[in-house]
Amino acid sequence: MTNRFLQACYRQPTDTTPIWLMRQAGRYMPEYRQLRERYGILEIIKTPELACEVTMQPINAFDLDAAIIFADILPVLEAMGLKLSFVKGEGPIIHNPVRTAEDVQQLRTPSAQESLSFTLEAIRLVKSELESRHLPLIGFSGAPFTLAAYAVESGSSKNHRLVKTFMMNEPQTWQTLMLKIATVVADYLLAQAEAGADALQLFDSWAGQLSPADYERWVMPYSQWVINTVKAKTKIPVIHFGVNTSGMLHLIRQGGGDVIGVDWRIPIHKGWEIIGYDKAIQGNLDPVALFASWEVLQVQAKAILDAVQGRAGHIFNLGHGILPETPVDNVKRLVDFVHEYSAKYAHS
Amino acid sequence: MTNRFLQACYRQPTDTTPIWLMRQAGRYMPEYRQLRERYGILEIIKTPELACEVTMQPINAFDLDAAIIFADILPVLEAMGLKLSFVKGEGPIIHNPVRTAEDVQQLRTPSAQESLSFTLEAIRLVKSELESRHLPLIGFSGAPFTLAAYAVESGSSKNHRLVKTFMMNEPQTWQTLMLKIATVVADYLLAQAEAGADALQLFDSWAGQLSPADYERWVMPYSQWVINTVKAKTKIPVIHFGVNTSGMLHLIRQGGGDVIGVDWRIPIHKGWEIIGYDKAIQGNLDPVALFASWEVLQVQAKAILDAVQGRAGHIFNLGHGILPETPVDNVKRLVDFVHEYSAKYAHS
Repeated sequence: MTNRFLQACYRQPTDTTPIWLMRQAGRYMPEYRQLRERYGILEIIKTPELACEVTMQPINAFDLDAAIIFADILPVLEAMGLKLSFVKGEGPIIHNPVRTAEDVQQLRTPSAQESLSFTLEAIRLVKSELESRHLPLIGFSGAPFTLAAYAVESGSSKNHRLVKTFMMNEPQTWQTLMLKIATVVADYLLAQAEAGADALQLFDSWAGQLSPADYERWVMPYSQWVINTVKAKTKIPVIHFGVNTSGMLHLIRQGGGDVIGVDWRIPIHKGWEIIGYDKAIQGNLDPVALFASWEVLQVQAKAILDAVQGRAGHIFNLGHGILPETPVDNVKRLVDFVHEYSAKYAHS
Repeated sequence: MTNRFLQACYRQPTDTTPIWLMRQAGRYMPEYRQLRERYGILEIIKTPELACEVTMQPINAFDLDAAIIFADILPVLEAMGLKLSFVKGEGPIIHNPVRTAEDVQQLRTPSAQESLSFTLEAIRLVKSELESRHLPLIGFSGAPFTLAAYAVESGSSKNHRLVKTFMMNEPQTWQTLMLKIATVVADYLLAQAEAGADALQLFDSWAGQLSPADYERWVMPYSQWVINTVKAKTKIPVIHFGVNTSGMLHLIRQGGGDVIGVDWRIPIHKGWEIIGYDKAIQGNLDPVALFASWEVLQVQAKAILDAVQGRAGHIFNLGHGILPETPVDNVKRLVDFVHEYSAKYAHS
C-alpha cells in the first residue's frame, strides 16, 4: 500500500504532511457519544462490529491519513488476570492490583489469539472497510512500564509512588513482572500485524514519570525487547511514543521504533535533533490548542510545520490524546490545513 | 551571613554540597501531623507562631542548610479576592474561579503588608529562631502562571484546558490577569525579603504543562517581570523552579533567577549544560526515591553528586516536593549522606 502516513514512517518524501490524531475515535465525536448511550466502553471494545464502527467514525468525518483500531491498553492486563472496570469520572480501576511477588507469579501470559481476539477480529473488519479507501490501520499496545504502572497503582496515579518503589526495591520481582508483560505485549502486537495492522504504536504514557536513569535501567530494556521481537517478525513500522520525555528522548530512541512520538513540551525540531534524523517523528500539537479559536490554532499548527520545514519523516499529530470536549469543527479544519499548508514543503 | 546554601546560590565554592528539600516542613513529619490534629492547614499558615513552629520542625530534626517558611502559594489568590478552601483528599478548591474579563476586573491587588501579614510575621519569628543557628530562611511565592492556573481551573487540573484556552483566546484579558498577579507576587516577595527572608523561590509548578512557544509568549514575560522587579530592589538570591520543563530550560533561565530548579526528568548535568554554568542549579532527586531502601536511595543521591562533580553552584534538593508518607529515617540519612559524600568534591 502506498500511503503518505506509511511513507513518512520510513522517511520517504510525501506530497503533503500526513496527519492522524491519538484517540481520534472517541468521546469528542457526537457519533461516538450516541453509541455510548447504549454500550459501555469495554462492551464496544469487545464487540468487533462496534469497535469497527467507532474506528471508522473519524475516517468518515475527516481526511485523516490513517485509522487506529478502537481499543484500550488495559484489556491486556485483564487477559493477564486482573479485574478491570471503568468508573465514570474516575477512569480505569484495577480491583486486584499487583503488589507482591505472589501477585506477579499468578499473572497469566495467554496468547492474544486466546484472550484478545475481539480486537484482532475488529482489525480484520476495519481492514476490509479501509481497503477501498487505500488507508492504513494502526494497531497499538501500552508499553510494559505503563501497563505495570496501572497494574501496581490500581489505576491512574499522581506520583506513581507504588510502582516506582516496587521497581526500586524488588528488582527481581520487577524483572519477572516486566518480562511477563513484555511477552504478552509483543505477542499482542504481532497478532495485530497478522490480523492486518499496517503499523503499530507502543504507548508509554507514564515513561515520563521516571528519571532518565531509572527509565534506562528498569524500563527501556523491556520496551526494547518488545520492539526488537516485533521487528524481527514483521516489516511494518513501529511508533514509540511517550509523554513528558523531553529530557530523555535519546533513551526513547534507544528503546527502538521507526517513528518516535513526542509531546508538545519540546519544540519539535529540537526533539528531532536529539532523536536523530534517521528516525521519523510524530507530533506535537498541544491537544488544548484545538479548543482555541481557529486563528490561534492555525498559528500553532503552522509553527510546527514551519519548524520541520517538510523534512521527510514528519507525521503530524497531537502531543497526547485528543480531549473529550474538543470541537469537531477545529479537528476538520486542522486536518485540512495540515495537508494544504504543508504541500508547499512537498518533496523535500 | 555566610552559609553554604547562600554561597552556592552565587556559585561560590562550599565545603560540602548544601541541601534543603521542597516541602521539608509538612505531612511526612510526625510532629506536623500531631499539630494538624488540632489545626487546619490554613489556620497554621495564618497563625505566625504555628507557622514558625512548623518551619522549625525539619530544622530541628535534620542537618538542613536552609529553612523555608511554612506557607502556601494560594493565600495570594485569597488576598486577591478568591475564596479558597482545602478539601481533604481533593486538595485546594477555589469557589469563585476567574473565567471572564469581569472576574479579572474584580480581582484586587492589595499589598502583602495588608493581606499576607501573617506570613511576614512568621518570617520575623523564624528569623529570630534561626539566628543562633546561622541558617538562612527561604521565602517563596507561586509564579503568575501557576497561580492563574489555580484561579481559572478552580483547583488542580489534569490537562489545564480552561486556563490554556483562556490564555490563547483572550490575550488582552490574560495580560490583565497576569499583570495583576505579577504585581501582587512581586510585592509579596519583596515584603518577605524585607521581613528577613535570605532567599526567595518562585514556584512555577504548572509551567511544564505549556509548550515552549506558549510559555515564551504568554507566561515568561510575567515571571521575568516579577524577578526583575524583585532583583531591582534586593540583592538576595532568587530560585526559579518549574516542573516538567526539560524541553524549555533555556526559557526558564531566560525568565530569570540566580538558581534554576529542575525536576528529575533530565540528568542534572544535561540540565545545567542547557541552563548555562553562569547560573546555579537546584535538584534533582525523584521524591519517590525516598521510599526506596537506603541502599537504592544512596545510589541515586550519589549519581546526582557524581554527575555535577562538586561544581560550585549545585544545591541538592528533590525534583519536586517531598511526599506525605516519606520515611523520616531516609530523609535524615539523605541529608547526612549529601554532606559527607560531597565533601570529597569540596572547593572545586
